[in-house]
Amino acid sequence: MVIIMQQGAPRAQVDDVVAVIEREGFRAFENPGVERKVIAVLGVVDSQKMEISHRLESLDGVERVTIISEPYKLSSRNYTADNTVIRVGGVEIGGNDVVVMGGPCSVESREQLLETAHAVKNAGGRLLRGGAFKPRTSPYSFQGLGEEGLKLLAEAREATGLPIVTEILDPFDLPLVAEYADVFQVGARNMSNFRLLELLGRTDKPVLLKRGPCAKLREMLQAAEYIMKDGNHQVMLCERGIVTFDDATRNTTDINAIPVLKQWSHLPVILDPSHSVGYTRWIPAIARAGVAAGADGIILEVHPNPSRALSDGGQSLRPEQFSKVVGELRAVAGAVGRGLA
Amino acid sequence: MVIIMQQGAPRAQVDDVVAVIEREGFRAFENPGVERKVIAVLGVVDSQKMEISHRLESLDGVERVTIISEPYKLSSRNYTADNTVIRVGGVEIGGNDVVVMGGPCSVESREQLLETAHAVKNAGGRLLRGGAFKPRTSPYSFQGLGEEGLKLLAEAREATGLPIVTEILDPFDLPLVAEYADVFQVGARNMSNFRLLELLGRTDKPVLLKRGPCAKLREMLQAAEYIMKDGNHQVMLCERGIVTFDDATRNTTDINAIPVLKQWSHLPVILDPSHSVGYTRWIPAIARAGVAAGADGIILEVHPNPSRALSDGGQSLRPEQFSKVVGELRAVAGAVGRGLA
Amino acid sequence: MVIIMQQGAPRAQVDDVVAVIEREGFRAFENPGVERKVIAVLGVVDSQKMEISHRLESLDGVERVTIISEPYKLSSRNYTADNTVIRVGGVEIGGNDVVVMGGPCSVESREQLLETAHAVKNAGGRLLRGGAFKPRTSPYSFQGLGEEGLKLLAEAREATGLPIVTEILDPFDLPLVAEYADVFQVGARNMSNFRLLELLGRTDKPVLLKRGPCAKLREMLQAAEYIMKDGNHQVMLCERGIVTFDDATRNTTDINAIPVLKQWSHLPVILDPSHSVGYTRWIPAIARAGVAAGADGIILEVHPNPSRALSDGGQSLRPEQFSKVVGELRAVAGAVGRGLA
Amino acid sequence: MVIIMQQGAPRAQVDDVVAVIEREGFRAFENPGVERKVIAVLGVVDSQKMEISHRLESLDGVERVTIISEPYKLSSRNYTADNTVIRVGGVEIGGNDVVVMGGPCSVESREQLLETAHAVKNAGGRLLRGGAFKPRTSPYSFQGLGEEGLKLLAEAREATGLPIVTEILDPFDLPLVAEYADVFQVGARNMSNFRLLELLGRTDKPVLLKRGPCAKLREMLQAAEYIMKDGNHQVMLCERGIVTFDDATRNTTDINAIPVLKQWSHLPVILDPSHSVGYTRWIPAIARAGVAAGADGIILEVHPNPSRALSDGGQSLRPEQFSKVVGELRAVAGAVGRGLA
Repeated sequence: MVIIMQQGAPRAQVDDVVAVIEREGFRAFENPGVERKVIAVLGVVDSQKMEISHRLESLDGVERVTIISEPYKLSSRNYTADNTVIRVGGVEIGGNDVVVMGGPCSVESREQLLETAHAVKNAGGRLLRGGAFKPRTSPYSFQGLGEEGLKLLAEAREATGLPIVTEILDPFDLPLVAEYADVFQVGARNMSNFRLLELLGRTDKPVLLKRGPCAKLREMLQAAEYIMKDGNHQVMLCERGIVTFDDATRNTTDINAIPVLKQWSHLPVILDPSHSVGYTRWIPAIARAGVAAGADGIILEVHPNPSRALSDGGQSLRPEQFSKVVGELRAVAGAVGRGLA
Repeated sequence: MVIIMQQGAPRAQVDDVVAVIEREGFRAFENPGVERKVIAVLGVVDSQKMEISHRLESLDGVERVTIISEPYKLSSRNYTADNTVIRVGGVEIGGNDVVVMGGPCSVESREQLLETAHAVKNAGGRLLRGGAFKPRTSPYSFQGLGEEGLKLLAEAREATGLPIVTEILDPFDLPLVAEYADVFQVGARNMSNFRLLELLGRTDKPVLLKRGPCAKLREMLQAAEYIMKDGNHQVMLCERGIVTFDDATRNTTDINAIPVLKQWSHLPVILDPSHSVGYTRWIPAIARAGVAAGADGIILEVHPNPSRALSDGGQSLRPEQFSKVVGELRAVAGAVGRGLA
Repeated sequence: MVIIMQQGAPRAQVDDVVAVIEREGFRAFENPGVERKVIAVLGVVDSQKMEISHRLESLDGVERVTIISEPYKLSSRNYTADNTVIRVGGVEIGGNDVVVMGGPCSVESREQLLETAHAVKNAGGRLLRGGAFKPRTSPYSFQGLGEEGLKLLAEAREATGLPIVTEILDPFDLPLVAEYADVFQVGARNMSNFRLLELLGRTDKPVLLKRGPCAKLREMLQAAEYIMKDGNHQVMLCERGIVTFDDATRNTTDINAIPVLKQWSHLPVILDPSHSVGYTRWIPAIARAGVAAGADGIILEVHPNPSRALSDGGQSLRPEQFSKVVGELRAVAGAVGRGLA
Repeated sequence: MVIIMQQGAPRAQVDDVVAVIEREGFRAFENPGVERKVIAVLGVVDSQKMEISHRLESLDGVERVTIISEPYKLSSRNYTADNTVIRVGGVEIGGNDVVVMGGPCSVESREQLLETAHAVKNAGGRLLRGGAFKPRTSPYSFQGLGEEGLKLLAEAREATGLPIVTEILDPFDLPLVAEYADVFQVGARNMSNFRLLELLGRTDKPVLLKRGPCAKLREMLQAAEYIMKDGNHQVMLCERGIVTFDDATRNTTDINAIPVLKQWSHLPVILDPSHSVGYTRWIPAIARAGVAAGADGIILEVHPNPSRALSDGGQSLRPEQFSKVVGELRAVAGAVGRGLA
């Protein structure tokens, strides 16, 4: 941690800062400087950095405090140099091959789900996504089928062999969802629901963690830390678009996030073009871009009849569109030295 | 709802859109147009607008769909023209007088809390804020005292007569927090925790709803709708800063939100300058701006010794600073024809 | 144009709006509506839409005004269905093959430029970029070599056969820069320098128009309109990253912009990963993503010795890194059915 | 400047960084550190910081480079502790009294301008604003009256005694505009038009510098530096709203900017609520907030008949609305210990 004093801060203020640092049990190290004093703080462990830094900023004469090392640890590439590979059913996520996941936004009916599941499977998808509990901006929108939806997902898994990715909205639902899910999805709105993350960290199932719509990448890695700290290291980091000033698309795909997360972290990185773009017509291009940028997986919304979908119809691919996209992803994966799982 | 067709969309596509609209039971109304067709949809109730709109966007030939009326109702100024006034203890929030709330970010100890509570009371604060459960970005930071913190808050209320505003993090904690709180605070990270909002809507206590850091004002009013739909109309809308590109301050205070929310909604509007600025030195100016812009209340973090605070030290006011700010707010309130409660 | 009245707006206000519309010479068309009146305005030509819309918004009882068709015309895909192909030297931009452009941020010396130009040529680059006039955030930074830089660019063109892309900062420099440039580059800070755009529209040379760091795509197309309206239709649209809340990279690459611009416009679309990412290590991934998403060209900063570069050293590729990237782009282009020019 | 090495960067990389620093003629100072090395660089003057920092970031093993002191100097509060007071006609801007400026967006006609000028004067406005050259997003919108507009402004000054603030769009227009203007306005789109800024720095007239819509405050102070470096220190910093994700208002007023700029800089700070909000109905509240937050001036658009305005009708105040706002600003100024000039 580095403390930058205000220009011309008197010696007494510098001494106060040093005294506070030492009172907390750390070492202060003053740098020479002409205009302003810079003080390095040694010995602060990661777990305390955010707190100590904010407190030091309240002292008179302090301009700002810069944290040198990241406030996350287990999710960092510094913790382990090798890519984490997560196994779900027979599929490996985070290895050399790119994994495609598909399915409807919401499970709506047995027929809708089974038709979609078979289409996903036949096209080359390796996991089936589908929501049984839906967080909806409006309280008057369809909220999902609940347990009935989970049962249909299990039936679709039975019928196709595809493992299931489904959203867990709330700690209340954990026992129920845990009975059915192969992968827990944490939605963007819940990226900072720390209690939920901690509880998932005590399960033994992989977690697909979606980035909050205005979360910095650093904050996403701190959220992963909540899941990992009690031992569940099977976390996938999912970029799903961020909120910006541009309204041409529903969100802005932060494609930079893919190489950055791959360097900062050893965890698999997934792209969700359906949410990050939000319009069917532009989704294939962004899915291809995700693979070209180094994503380990692509998750796509598929619906047999988008104009009748109870949610996200405008960003769902029809089965034949999905099938075409998978072919394109296979070609791009080949071009960057990978295959499709 | 208005559907804008792509330029040159053939008649058959227009007919399909009309057919879908009528299949759903609504009336389609075609506007004349030279370049492109515009179709108005009549009869869609608010509760279905978001869904229908997204589905229609998936149809061939549709350029985009615009929703004419707001997707919220109970929180709208159109629902009731009079300002909602919320009574907590003897204090009225949303009436002519501006209410100041103060207290520490986290309850840390009996001594810290009581000292702060008395200071808040003596300076003219009318509610005491303090967190017992803290959502922290890092899993390694102080997470609050839990029930012990709530008991201390109750003791401070006893000692000073100030009603308590405290955060509810999770549905799990509701029975416990409900025993102690006078006002439930919903933090920015939880603005879209719809299940929590629904449960709070079934209590009879006021809710201070903080805006999500990248929530549009419209989305904030939809979140209020989740609380209000089962009968709890005691919701305060709290601006606490949004996420933008500028890093001079911790967040960007969206001061525009104050007059906009006052016009769009009948609910009281509160400003939280501590979070929206994040640095003690600039908080008084923004608190004054909030009152000048029409806020019904100002909520401020106060700590007897910010450099030892376990959270938010860098944005806490010392008791004497808080007292000075209250005096300034009284003067500005007078200038805009209001008093301090 | 569609005017949405406030809920409960009295008949007299509706009549006023209609009267203003008719006074301006247009036709008003009232839609039936239960809660609020919607009025369509017919006959307004594109050139007046922005103005009329803003004026109508000032009338009593008007909630908001929505423009139905785009406020740009010549740059729209509706104007011409075929892709515009721009020819520079022997290179076609906007056709089936993807074009790679490379070169230093600033021309610094004869040796630096020639070494880079040969490296770009040998690696498969088809245009040479290099700045002679540099807009720098700090007045104390290197501002470019000026005419001397242009002469060196001409010499490099002579030596390698590569056409030159160079920035025009100001109308003052137009005669001089026009003597040397094959393609005028308009920098992001100048996207709304409308006088410069108009002057470029009266030349017969292609323009590489960079997107402003907070310009909506719609605004970028309006900027292109300024160049095109007097007859110069040779405009390339260049995404170079937008400003967002995330600070992991210098800007956020708006990869969505690529398929959106390709659909909305017939103009060639270029991606500049050097600026949109800002760190050498992540540039190759984003360049590949650009080609996968459908970009017609990629422009990259190349420097023989980035640690001695007078500008943008941190985002320049060394010649051998550039060469490697070109190979990767060739593979990705092949995967999406294109080649490298 | 502080260089943070990557964790585990080998000694050889640290040595390379030190060698580069010393080659440039500065002193390197290594800090002890457990996980990662931190190197302070001493002796780099402000004028070189941005450049050197970007180059050092390109070296192997460097994680990032942090600049300790600001890359601006003359505009900094550290340069001079006293507030700069700018005199225009008999008015002082930046002193104890708050200055109100008003006038139309564009000069449209003699009658419109004179009527507005008298209304501004009578209501208590002290400067007259009005544009003769207008930058318009669409090439088909009204672009201003040009020299004719300047002449009308001079006539209005004659008639009312109010000094004139008018926009300078381009270096080409400088001789002409300099003949008429009392204060040059630099529009938001031109904040980084460095050549224009430099030329204005060689005049002896005050400059009202508007913040770019996505410029950080630090960048705004660097832009001021371009004007100040050749001796013209009469710069006013004008907040006019920034671009964010929220679309409830045209821009987001960054009210935090006011106290931050007042602390970081000695220059007067002005707020432009007309652009920062964009809707007449909410402008008064934001103007009051600006004064409460410490602005030295408020600039407002006034038009006798907004529904006929050729630009910005939707954000103009009618004369009687302007007069009412001035009264409110007088009251708020009094509440914060100031008067209206």
